[in-house]
Amino acid sequence: MKTTAILAIFMTTLLTYTGAHAQQKNQVVRLAKIQVDPAQLESYKAALKEAIETAVRLEPGVLTYYAVADKNDPAHITILEIYADSAAYQSHIETPHFKKYKNAVKDMVRSLELVDVDLIAVATKQKE
Amino acid sequence: MKTTAILAIFMTTLLTYTGAHAQQKNQVVRLAKIQVDPAQLESYKAALKEAIETAVRLEPGVLTYYAVADKNDPAHITILEIYADSAAYQSHIETPHFKKYKNAVKDMVRSLELVDVDLIAVATKQKE
Repeated sequence: MKTTAILAIFMTTLLTYTGAHAQQKNQVVRLAKIQVDPAQLESYKAALKEAIETAVRLEPGVLTYYAVADKNDPAHITILEIYADSAAYQSHIETPHFKKYKNAVKDMVRSLELVDVDLIAVATKQKE
Repeated sequence: MKTTAILAIFMTTLLTYTGAHAQQKNQVVRLAKIQVDPAQLESYKAALKEAIETAVRLEPGVLTYYAVADKNDPAHITILEIYADSAAYQSHIETPHFKKYKNAVKDMVRSLELVDVDLIAVATKQKE
């Protein structure tokens, strides 16, 4: 009976997780706007994908990346980045995987604009 | 024993959900870039928050919204929107909650640019 009750709690947690929240205090949120050399776009995207998946997997304070490419200009990429706090971000840029990414893409990136933002609203289902 | 096994599966699902994936086929992904009347910014943000939370809660095909405001220009808002497919998007803009939002903000929004994008990489922990 007790186990069933615990199971019910887990099932409820799974089934009702539709999160809606605004920014947690101390989070660092940023939009990176990147122009990539179109001739090297596929290599760039592979390096980016590896870098963000590694960071989220290995670093407790690296929370979220969404990277999108304009349909009309696929070499124009925008990345939404969310870190737990500025210490997590500072730690991130010192990791071997981040340095590997920066080195790999240094001749692929034509311009990079970093825009500090506040997360004002989020709503998301558990999986996209 | 059987219940314990099921419980173990649920726990594993919860504990290992760190998602990393690219766009699912058919998804509609967009960046909305909005300039809001600074004098009406708080009202706009309240209307936006209610609209996106309602849409994700009520509509199976409305998957994700992240809304951010530039720190240096808080009336400049960028929203990342993800819908399951174009039918889900078409259905969304016919809902009462979407129409209520559009009507509520029509005199608050100074400009709106919609940029169709492809999701090229995502990595996220379960909760931000």
